[in-house]
Amino acid sequence: MSRQNFEEQLDGLHRQLMSMGTLVEEAIHKAIKSLVERDRELAMEVMKNDQLINQMEHEIESGCFRTIALQQPVGGDLRRLGTMLKIVTDLERMGDHAVAIAKTTTRLMAEPYVKPLIDIPLMADHVKAMVRDSLNAYIAKDDQAAGRIAAQDDVVDKLYAKIFRDLIEVMSKQEHTINQGTHLLLVAQYLERIADHVTNICEWVIYMTSGQKTDLNK
Amino acid sequence: MSRQNFEEQLDGLHRQLMSMGTLVEEAIHKAIKSLVERDRELAMEVMKNDQLINQMEHEIESGCFRTIALQQPVGGDLRRLGTMLKIVTDLERMGDHAVAIAKTTTRLMAEPYVKPLIDIPLMADHVKAMVRDSLNAYIAKDDQAAGRIAAQDDVVDKLYAKIFRDLIEVMSKQEHTINQGTHLLLVAQYLERIADHVTNICEWVIYMTSGQKTDLNK
Repeated sequence: MSRQNFEEQLDGLHRQLMSMGTLVEEAIHKAIKSLVERDRELAMEVMKNDQLINQMEHEIESGCFRTIALQQPVGGDLRRLGTMLKIVTDLERMGDHAVAIAKTTTRLMAEPYVKPLIDIPLMADHVKAMVRDSLNAYIAKDDQAAGRIAAQDDVVDKLYAKIFRDLIEVMSKQEHTINQGTHLLLVAQYLERIADHVTNICEWVIYMTSGQKTDLNK
Repeated sequence: MSRQNFEEQLDGLHRQLMSMGTLVEEAIHKAIKSLVERDRELAMEVMKNDQLINQMEHEIESGCFRTIALQQPVGGDLRRLGTMLKIVTDLERMGDHAVAIAKTTTRLMAEPYVKPLIDIPLMADHVKAMVRDSLNAYIAKDDQAAGRIAAQDDVVDKLYAKIFRDLIEVMSKQEHTINQGTHLLLVAQYLERIADHVTNICEWVIYMTSGQKTDLNK
């Protein structure tokens, strides 16, 4: 296989990766929207679409293995494909967290919210932007950007801590809110985990460009 | 590189993988023990040892990439190395969950437990056995065993559901337990996630032996 063929295969895989990223962003967006608007149908859509995300993971993986087997790349080319193999796992896991959020929507349909959800959608907006930015950093081989994106995890962690505190306070004062509060707390945790997966992706990008593994996930 | 060299390299990587697995099992064991016995020093040890787990992940990854680059394996050999690349990610993430549990130990030192922890250590015992068994299934290329191990995730899910219900009930009756109860609930969730990672490993083992990706994580 020629160098040109290799680049073409890699481009194809990158396009698939970005499509998968878009699906994951949409899954997060719709899952949170379904929760905020108590939209059971939208929640079901997120659960159903997760199969597509899993399938894309599998296709990209197969593509990576095929390219490794046919092209037998070394050095930076091999690291690039190895990084992609890692990134799709993180993306797939993000999709699972979106499903978990959508399931929460269906569980909390019975009772009204104690107060409107504000911080959770805010946290989700940050997280979605981080997902997209981290994939762009991978494509652009931009380890500087990767470092900056991972640093934004602090904002997410602070929002998570605030939501955690607020919910504990509400639950302590109104004990009938404990079931709801606990589930919302887990939603915040799913978002926090998605941000952790973004940090993983950023670590892979830095590994790919520098060969050095850093621990950005403090 | 000869076939014999390849097998030797693979054996070396497998030994490293099993060592990493042992470290992860120990981390889970010690994290739960630190929580049950309220042992801050043991909790600190888990946090400290996580660096070792991260380092092993990196070493095994580098070894896999080196072997791929030097030996340029195809087919089953390549899938074997690809699977190992995936498994170390799951193991590393399990280590992170053990750290999260250890951090909970340090957070809950101030107040006595409302009741002795029984189901959480029980759940942890199941999870630890699953970790070990899944790695053995990988080494033995035993997809039947992998299927059986993944099926045990049901036991873990049931224990998780029970712990969840029990904690919600305690929190509802005694509102001063909400902070503690919430943190213990997250511990149960960390264990549930570790079991999910085991299920991932089982999926990889089946993929490796059959070339088919299944979704065991229902």
